[in-house]
Amino acid sequence: MPVMKQSLNKPLPVPGFRVGSASCGVKSPELKGKRQDVTLIVADVPAQAAAVFTQNSFRAACVNLGEETICQNAQNIRAIVANAGNANAGVGEMERVWSQDLVNLAAIAAGVDSKQVLSASTGVIGTPFPIDRIAATMHECIDSLAVDNWQAAAEAIRTTDTFAKYASRQFQSFEQHMDGKTYTITGVSKGSGMIHPNMATMLGFIATDAPISAGRLQTMLSKIADCSFNSISVDGDTSTNDTVYLLSSGLGLGDVELEDTSAFEEALTEVAIELAQLIVRDGEGVTKFVSIEVSGAESEKQARELGRKIAVSPLVKTAFAGSDANWGRIICAIGNSGAPIDPSKVSIKADNVLILQDGNLHPDYSDEMGMKVFAQQEFTLCVDIGLGQGSATVWTGDLTHEYITINAEYRS
Amino acid sequence: MPVMKQSLNKPLPVPGFRVGSASCGVKSPELKGKRQDVTLIVADVPAQAAAVFTQNSFRAACVNLGEETICQNAQNIRAIVANAGNANAGVGEMERVWSQDLVNLAAIAAGVDSKQVLSASTGVIGTPFPIDRIAATMHECIDSLAVDNWQAAAEAIRTTDTFAKYASRQFQSFEQHMDGKTYTITGVSKGSGMIHPNMATMLGFIATDAPISAGRLQTMLSKIADCSFNSISVDGDTSTNDTVYLLSSGLGLGDVELEDTSAFEEALTEVAIELAQLIVRDGEGVTKFVSIEVSGAESEKQARELGRKIAVSPLVKTAFAGSDANWGRIICAIGNSGAPIDPSKVSIKADNVLILQDGNLHPDYSDEMGMKVFAQQEFTLCVDIGLGQGSATVWTGDLTHEYITINAEYRS
Repeated sequence: MPVMKQSLNKPLPVPGFRVGSASCGVKSPELKGKRQDVTLIVADVPAQAAAVFTQNSFRAACVNLGEETICQNAQNIRAIVANAGNANAGVGEMERVWSQDLVNLAAIAAGVDSKQVLSASTGVIGTPFPIDRIAATMHECIDSLAVDNWQAAAEAIRTTDTFAKYASRQFQSFEQHMDGKTYTITGVSKGSGMIHPNMATMLGFIATDAPISAGRLQTMLSKIADCSFNSISVDGDTSTNDTVYLLSSGLGLGDVELEDTSAFEEALTEVAIELAQLIVRDGEGVTKFVSIEVSGAESEKQARELGRKIAVSPLVKTAFAGSDANWGRIICAIGNSGAPIDPSKVSIKADNVLILQDGNLHPDYSDEMGMKVFAQQEFTLCVDIGLGQGSATVWTGDLTHEYITINAEYRS
Repeated sequence: MPVMKQSLNKPLPVPGFRVGSASCGVKSPELKGKRQDVTLIVADVPAQAAAVFTQNSFRAACVNLGEETICQNAQNIRAIVANAGNANAGVGEMERVWSQDLVNLAAIAAGVDSKQVLSASTGVIGTPFPIDRIAATMHECIDSLAVDNWQAAAEAIRTTDTFAKYASRQFQSFEQHMDGKTYTITGVSKGSGMIHPNMATMLGFIATDAPISAGRLQTMLSKIADCSFNSISVDGDTSTNDTVYLLSSGLGLGDVELEDTSAFEEALTEVAIELAQLIVRDGEGVTKFVSIEVSGAESEKQARELGRKIAVSPLVKTAFAGSDANWGRIICAIGNSGAPIDPSKVSIKADNVLILQDGNLHPDYSDEMGMKVFAQQEFTLCVDIGLGQGSATVWTGDLTHEYITINAEYRS
């Protein structure tokens, strides 16, 4: 059961983009017609593009290919093709061939050049890629292309995800000639296991009609990825295929480039954080959603690393699961972070309950107070290490029986 | 259920040492008389001493105190006092006071100086240390002192351990005047959760009558700890209190110092590895014992770090639990190790079954073959990354429902 308060709002169409999907039986022929597993996002005009990729040394071929395409052609992208059910990873020399085949199929279907197509694959590692099954059914993607079809893309990239993930924001530009014109950002994401900072089995595709060139998009995406997609953790594993693509149709549609990107950046950050948090909320076996706010670090990087260390500790995560305010496990994780911790400067708060102040248990604190916070479905852990001004927030879930069941009993 | 093939041999007495234990109700008064929770190891002569301690920044006071004592007095140690049930950690300024109190109590009981006593505590973090209950019952330790009582020490330091852990080895010295004299090494250890390289909630006390001075003992212990206690992982968490002490009575008993320590070192390595492996075998919820042999690394250190990365991956460990030869998760963990991996040079073997050779799935490999290996209670995973000559072995267990139950449902 995901940790959700309400259902998601329908994703908004983005001028210049159409989305389609197909049911190819990627994982196995029996699934053909039963669930959508390939999606095609088409830009009707040349789009500006940016991307961030997995840091894992075992990168799938689609990641290498996507990076090359972005390097060569970031100002002229026309499509993203993606599939679930097979990661096309860990299969040796054929990987690159199959990855190129997938891009070629999408290019032919969309009537664009292969060099204008980005791709992403997610699913089982180490199983031959069923390119023939995808080829046989790719036409369904074209047949279903529509401007209001983003939800289909979110559905088609699901693996063990229990729900489709998407988010939209709009903002207005009041620059000269813009006259308060409204722009849209819509994104979809997937991921629920093997989730950890630095692009963990996670895909995210974001489109906007805000007129911004590729270089500036890349700068913003790289920065925003750190405080969104790279700030979540389900199980500390970073996958071979993680990819976030960001496309903009605005310049292609003839708009003048935005000078002031602050409103765009704010909206993009919100979309990215929402997409990232949805992944944690749907984390395998997760029953709690915990925000870990670290402050007093020497740098933002140190704060984020410390937050991650807490976020991946199995002892901390099982304490979350057990509604046990076991702050001993939290200080243990802090002590393992590699930061030059001075225990006498460390303070810990759970929501509004002060547990540890400057290394000493707060006199008013009782286990009951802590347990009450930890028993909630959502809460915030604040850790201040008293060394400097760096801060960062990381989001994680608990570690439950259900996680073991999903990962020990099924091959994902 | 621990992963054991047979019961342990009774630990051998070590000339110059006597061991006692007491039931003080450290964790709660109700446990008094029900289980032993304090142990006292007395050296009848001044012992040479060496130690290795946790790398966690949140070090318990007993760790700091023990390190100071070793620094000042490594050639003249007379006792180790240790308790289970309360780690005397994370309790602020009183920690140091209580830690010194424990040492003082032991010194008075054993009739030695406080400066000659090492201490160690394990158990719950963040609960006031019940020094009064220990003071009231410390005399039981003295009353029960005996040369053949090592098993009692192993029992008394248990926390969530399901069995007492000990190991002995003997070796002969043929140096001048030694005439093939036999020396003994006996050690006890504890630990089953929060176990990870670099001294994780783990205690180990090793005694020998081999006549070797403190400095040489320290050199050997530091080296051997890396390939034994620091090469195991249960859940990737390194605790605040981990300590291994090594004492030698030989010089105190009047023996001439050994010049050639090769036989000693070999025997000590065996004892240390056996004690360390027992901790993994008794890992919380562990049903499988997996040796991970890494070769082809640029250095031993890199090999060990890579082995640890595989050993702590929740996805790999749940695959072990599910008897799923999910090598995709293994290459994913390898790719996350930080080593400069070249996928086309990586080979993976499970026992005698070659899975991946130079980055390609071996043509003879089938899932059934892999599953058969992974279904065993014990097996070896060999990973060669083809970069150099560095190798190391790491031991780990699987991640099961029982681990979640132990850590989410009970406070440890």
